[in-house]
Amino acid sequence: MLPTILDLSSLRAAYQSGLTPLDAIEEVIARRAASKDPAIFITTVPDEELRAAAKALMARAPEANSLPLWGVPFAVKDNIDAAGLPTTAACPAYEYRPEADATVVARLKAAGAIIIGKTNLDQFATGLNGTRSPYGAPRSVFDAAYISGGSSSGSAVTVASGLAAFALGTDTAGSGRVPAAFNNLVGIKPTPGLLPNTGAIPACKSVDCITIFAATVGDGVAIRKVAEGFDTADAFSRRAKPANLPVSGLRIGVLTGAEREFFGDKEVEALYDQAIERAKALGATIVPFDYAPFREAAALLYEGPWVAERLAAVETFLAANAADFDPTVRGIIEGAKGKTAVEAFNGRYRLEELRRKTEAEWEKADVLLLPTAPTTYTVADMLANPVVLNGRLGRYTNFVNLLDCAAIAVPAGFGKGGLPGGVTVIAPAFTDDALAPLADALHRAAGSGMGIDRQAAIPEVSRVVPGDDGFIEIAVVGAHLTGMPLNHELAGSGGRLVKTCRTAGDYRLFVLPNTTPPKPGLLREPGHKGQGLEVEVWALPADAFGRFVQKIPAPLGIGKLTLEDGSSVSGFVCEAHAVKGAEEITALGGWRNYISAKLAS
Amino acid sequence: MLPTILDLSSLRAAYQSGLTPLDAIEEVIARRAASKDPAIFITTVPDEELRAAAKALMARAPEANSLPLWGVPFAVKDNIDAAGLPTTAACPAYEYRPEADATVVARLKAAGAIIIGKTNLDQFATGLNGTRSPYGAPRSVFDAAYISGGSSSGSAVTVASGLAAFALGTDTAGSGRVPAAFNNLVGIKPTPGLLPNTGAIPACKSVDCITIFAATVGDGVAIRKVAEGFDTADAFSRRAKPANLPVSGLRIGVLTGAEREFFGDKEVEALYDQAIERAKALGATIVPFDYAPFREAAALLYEGPWVAERLAAVETFLAANAADFDPTVRGIIEGAKGKTAVEAFNGRYRLEELRRKTEAEWEKADVLLLPTAPTTYTVADMLANPVVLNGRLGRYTNFVNLLDCAAIAVPAGFGKGGLPGGVTVIAPAFTDDALAPLADALHRAAGSGMGIDRQAAIPEVSRVVPGDDGFIEIAVVGAHLTGMPLNHELAGSGGRLVKTCRTAGDYRLFVLPNTTPPKPGLLREPGHKGQGLEVEVWALPADAFGRFVQKIPAPLGIGKLTLEDGSSVSGFVCEAHAVKGAEEITALGGWRNYISAKLAS
Repeated sequence: MLPTILDLSSLRAAYQSGLTPLDAIEEVIARRAASKDPAIFITTVPDEELRAAAKALMARAPEANSLPLWGVPFAVKDNIDAAGLPTTAACPAYEYRPEADATVVARLKAAGAIIIGKTNLDQFATGLNGTRSPYGAPRSVFDAAYISGGSSSGSAVTVASGLAAFALGTDTAGSGRVPAAFNNLVGIKPTPGLLPNTGAIPACKSVDCITIFAATVGDGVAIRKVAEGFDTADAFSRRAKPANLPVSGLRIGVLTGAEREFFGDKEVEALYDQAIERAKALGATIVPFDYAPFREAAALLYEGPWVAERLAAVETFLAANAADFDPTVRGIIEGAKGKTAVEAFNGRYRLEELRRKTEAEWEKADVLLLPTAPTTYTVADMLANPVVLNGRLGRYTNFVNLLDCAAIAVPAGFGKGGLPGGVTVIAPAFTDDALAPLADALHRAAGSGMGIDRQAAIPEVSRVVPGDDGFIEIAVVGAHLTGMPLNHELAGSGGRLVKTCRTAGDYRLFVLPNTTPPKPGLLREPGHKGQGLEVEVWALPADAFGRFVQKIPAPLGIGKLTLEDGSSVSGFVCEAHAVKGAEEITALGGWRNYISAKLAS
Repeated sequence: MLPTILDLSSLRAAYQSGLTPLDAIEEVIARRAASKDPAIFITTVPDEELRAAAKALMARAPEANSLPLWGVPFAVKDNIDAAGLPTTAACPAYEYRPEADATVVARLKAAGAIIIGKTNLDQFATGLNGTRSPYGAPRSVFDAAYISGGSSSGSAVTVASGLAAFALGTDTAGSGRVPAAFNNLVGIKPTPGLLPNTGAIPACKSVDCITIFAATVGDGVAIRKVAEGFDTADAFSRRAKPANLPVSGLRIGVLTGAEREFFGDKEVEALYDQAIERAKALGATIVPFDYAPFREAAALLYEGPWVAERLAAVETFLAANAADFDPTVRGIIEGAKGKTAVEAFNGRYRLEELRRKTEAEWEKADVLLLPTAPTTYTVADMLANPVVLNGRLGRYTNFVNLLDCAAIAVPAGFGKGGLPGGVTVIAPAFTDDALAPLADALHRAAGSGMGIDRQAAIPEVSRVVPGDDGFIEIAVVGAHLTGMPLNHELAGSGGRLVKTCRTAGDYRLFVLPNTTPPKPGLLREPGHKGQGLEVEVWALPADAFGRFVQKIPAPLGIGKLTLEDGSSVSGFVCEAHAVKGAEEITALGGWRNYISAKLAS
């Protein structure tokens, strides 16, 4: 009754058809027992407790789908607290038992989601490959010889193998995105601070993000909306100020020249090129940009002072328990020991200089489309060369949090070897919602299914459509038309011309006496049968629209106009008293014709 | 012909009356020669070069006051570059000769200002007292036994003694404010990043601000507007997003209880209490707030890792030239040598936690009114105990840049000993303009003159009046009135009720047929003689106003209404066709009476 991949739409449909959360949990228990990868979980919620949780939900909210995540099984990376389960950060000696859920876990549970276990990770979230754990290395669901990606290795595998509908990860360098690429999943990497980190073990506290692995972009966004929101308990939590992206004419920046680096992996390079073609087919404008300043910022995360944040997070524990660390992780963290406060500030200065350089690139592109990871490796290769190969995996992810961006990783299809590749769309802070329609469309166009099920169809009901982009449309009829004396009030306020069209037929146009510059008055007269009048529809940011309305002098105002296609749009109206005795120019079809005629005479 | 204090209004008036910049420069030359404080300048522009600069300006812009700062003499703290003059940071061995002006200096010169010299400072801007310089200690213009305040010591004394109309300072801990307090001046401390630091020697690069010492708030704001603006060359420069403060009902937070600390100085405490009374008399609401988290943030600047920024700024020079440092300054900077990158990040975490705590205090108060400095000291006392006494001076200033605030220091009158005290108004980032009317009003109410001239009248023409606070007023007439079904669209969008009043007499009111909830239509009919109709005027933020207008259905719209007092305000209008045959209720005087009558019937 449940599909291989537990996407939210299929779960909801099943619940609507009579499946119960207890049924779903029984299926999860069975799948978990049948799983062939022993390294996915560090702690599992016991079968009986899972059943009890399902029953408790059914008692609390009996009606199917009566909560946003009613009966949705999920997994949590084991550096995020869940009350009653140990937290280890993949370091057994570090284990503690939190009394409280992390803020995001509490919000997800309150929305009806059911936690099934704590997942494996690169120890202390230090790594992008998934092999740095004493609990073993979770494997790519497509080839057990290959890494799953990390550090959120177990979380990705859980979702990709159908054990949970979604899973929480964390992402400092790319840990919420690289495993998505290697397991044919969506990775939602929110803007730093959008999801509170309260109850998560810091890696680099100033840049860490909690992330969501999901089957579809729509699922990931829906889950994010449950988990997000300001939390005073986290000093790095931020109040969201949604940022917009153009709904049409989107400019997508792609790698060119020497910055295209796939470390010889032609398969992933081909998948990247195919993703670019899909973006083009979706109507975007593909533009080159210079990746160099982003790459230099990315290098700061491990080569600069930020590694000292990892040391700050575990300093006391490390002093007493150095032997309990994964050797590679310990080597990285101990590398921060000699770093000085002066180096920390010099690193910050360098980052700010690079941020300034990247701002120039954001002038060229609205969104960046990058490979999520440039290639992948076998577990054996990774263990043989753990630092260099790991570093390659982060080539296109490490800059994102340092430069305060939102990102969504999506599947990009499969190479001939049967391994998936992924691409990530990236844009400045708080474009989380604005990025989603593009990410979703790219995923759908890739036609590569969800997780382990390469043939799965992405449910249409989960499609993400563009929302309000913060602009308000206004139809202008006179002195604000293009080329007319007041057009600058639109063009100079961030406005853009949407279209030129006509009003419905029952409007009449008059020349208002004593106006400077000359202005017309548009009046609706139901029953009047004319040919409609020329208008231009402009879109203005909401605040600019407000100021525009505020400046309009009597007898004009902004009401609603009906256009020739029957649609309604904000536009100029006129108080009736002002057109008494005024010259009517309805027959000319619009103000532009009247002005032309006047100039010609 | 020129007054003792060279405020901009007096200079402009003199120029308008025929004085030339050359005349003014001759006066400056004479005053400079007569100055009794030998420690003000590190480098002076020679007399002949000053005369040449005045002549060059008169050739470039012959018309009086034809540039914003036409013929305005100014001084520059000697840690900010001016082409052709050495920069020393008060360390002779550090001297270099910049080829270019600092960005702000270039902008001021382009606006017609004439630089007269480079002023003394606490070496490397490390200090708040003015005694830490091998070039001597500038003295308070009111008592040569007393410190001038620092680090921008010479800049403040230059303006306070009438040698220049304004001077540039820099401010990390309070260096642009403390000297203003000790010399009866205004100190404009812009939001960090508003004025670019390009061409200034860093103290703590991430928090440094260039500041302006001026005779009046109006002068300081006018000068700031010339100097401010984004500069890509400074990685910490920011694009300004002006923030508003309430124009009425301002809540001003003041010190209470144990946080009121004046180190025994009853005179300054009394001046602070008088300033609070003045704020009350100006109509503000005085509220208590908890200064503790601000004080703890202030302590981080010298006790936390930020002192490593000072070391980062001079590390190479210090290694080779330690003996050339002022011993106190060297001791402070060398104190950063043992600090680790972990400590730097831990300091950042602590700051973010404190920022969160201060946010709760900003919920209580719109603006903080604090003593600029809690007391002052003689030069002899300061030299005897240079670190502890200096630390006291920064008690109410050190947090401001770390917590990303704007501040304006203003005179607060004189104690019995003849020394001035100052107060500072402080509010969150980008309230620079919004703070100015309050600061100006407090300065005027203090009646303590300008700089050394305690009797000087502050020119009325320089008064700062409140500007646009980002709200737009709208008159509502029907379902949006208080208590009516759509009122939440106003109250729930950040709107506030401004007043209840009536329209002019020539409006008629109709009941629109088929509207839900029921709505009226208001039509103007010139010549109609009625008693006017009840309206409520609300104020909405511009974007909320825009969205409000966008939601209004036909036949309604927003045009301009004329009120009973003849004023015009945005408000509801109605397309005339919609009231044909509608019930007229003009005689009821308003929608509320109609609804009441209907409910009663």
